Amino acid sequence: MTPTIGVFDSGFGGLTVLRELLSLVPNARYLYLGDTARLPYGSKSRETIVRYALSSARFLHERGAELLVIACNTATALALDELRAALPIPVIGVIDPGTRAAARACAPASEGKQPGILVLATQATVESHAYARSCQSVGLQATEKACPLLVPLVEEGWVPDASRADTSLVTSQVLRIYLQEALEETPAARAVLLGCTHYPLLRQAIERTLSDLAHPVPVIDSAQATAQVVAAKLVAQANRGLPNASNCEFFATDSVEKFARLGSRFLGQSVNAVQLIDLGG
Amino acid sequence: MTPTIGVFDSGFGGLTVLRELLSLVPNARYLYLGDTARLPYGSKSRETIVRYALSSARFLHERGAELLVIACNTATALALDELRAALPIPVIGVIDPGTRAAARACAPASEGKQPGILVLATQATVESHAYARSCQSVGLQATEKACPLLVPLVEEGWVPDASRADTSLVTSQVLRIYLQEALEETPAARAVLLGCTHYPLLRQAIERTLSDLAHPVPVIDSAQATAQVVAAKLVAQANRGLPNASNCEFFATDSVEKFARLGSRFLGQSVNAVQLIDLGG
Repeated sequence: MTPTIGVFDSGFGGLTVLRELLSLVPNARYLYLGDTARLPYGSKSRETIVRYALSSARFLHERGAELLVIACNTATALALDELRAALPIPVIGVIDPGTRAAARACAPASEGKQPGILVLATQATVESHAYARSCQSVGLQATEKACPLLVPLVEEGWVPDASRADTSLVTSQVLRIYLQEALEETPAARAVLLGCTHYPLLRQAIERTLSDLAHPVPVIDSAQATAQVVAAKLVAQANRGLPNASNCEFFATDSVEKFARLGSRFLGQSVNAVQLIDLGG
Repeated sequence: MTPTIGVFDSGFGGLTVLRELLSLVPNARYLYLGDTARLPYGSKSRETIVRYALSSARFLHERGAELLVIACNTATALALDELRAALPIPVIGVIDPGTRAAARACAPASEGKQPGILVLATQATVESHAYARSCQSVGLQATEKACPLLVPLVEEGWVPDASRADTSLVTSQVLRIYLQEALEETPAARAVLLGCTHYPLLRQAIERTLSDLAHPVPVIDSAQATAQVVAAKLVAQANRGLPNASNCEFFATDSVEKFARLGSRFLGQSVNAVQLIDLGG
């Protein structure tokens, strides 16, 4: 039996989670929805994000999802409880898997003191303090830093690389400003947790900037940790042999061409046959 | 009689147009709607933008607007014809007033050749080529340059000023990259037209960057030009003495607190009593 896994994000970032899922659970059937007509969620209010996330999650459930992955930190931070209450299927967010991975990276703790970590995220995720609460529950002290320019920089393709010095310099400077501000507040941070699914594309640049700032701590992204939780859940639920058919369907609420073009950067392979849907926005 | 003027934008940028309107037509009644739950429009498709703009424009008409100003370049570029067809009141966009102001700045033309200008705008506005068509109609040749990072930089408050050298440097470098790329394509540009209502907040920085690039041409923003067109239209329509009561009402489809906070930066004065509305998104 092939499980159908719904994966939902406001846009393209969740494809970094799908990428890890495809690697760990290659034979499931995947339904991916990017709510691109209403992105970005990260700068919007709780009420609006809950409303958007509910309509997206219901769409995936109606299309046959048996397990839902909220591959969006903002939607996880602001709407996970509402989604779990509204849907009769398991709902997995990206925050708890990420913080548990961070806790493993920080172990063992210094005597009598909670290790501090730095969480980079969108404005809405930071304001929700969902990471602070999740970190607290695994014995970590989180400093949450809003980095509103990182998503547009990634979407503009200004990811630091050898091919263009000028745009690389801009992104490196933005990272330096954000990380410097955050480390001033938390000079003893033992890890950096990427609290937005766009940020894995900046992972190497973040590691380089941390080294430049003489603070070379592990950088953790929740995409892989979330995929591990999904894989474990499927084994626990089914335990009846591996599923056998690989398949992804992609849905977007705005331009399918843009989704296919930008999406391949996040998925790490080409994104084909995106279907346009209308959630009534 | 006090005319009621509806002013509509996807978010805050249109407040730069309202600011000019308040200065030229101070005694009208204003209804301002920022469709903040669904911003930004600039990265979305034509179909989505038309749908959003129609629902916003209808809301303002139902609330009593007798004249509608589309204070958003993206919505003007992609939805002006649809809005004019759907509404029984005059609808004024920001593009034609801006290009006419640019034509005045470029006059007289060199012999036998259309003056070239550079239009900075969002991705969606550029892809619509609305500026190229409008410029063509006034005898200008437009090079349209998409600058997706400028809106997030303005919204992050990284407008170059003396108070913070590091963030100012980032924005200056981004402007330098965009302007350099555009001037390589149009080395004889005689003016720069700001084709997005966020960009007036970067006007001085753009002028400085043009000087640094040894290309100090006039920078034109359409906000003032649009306000002049509205003022002329009101005089022509009414010609019965000045209206006598100043009043602005603000509506937003997402966080009213954020609207009030960010909005004052664009309006140049405090934004009070924002009302939250639901357009069904």
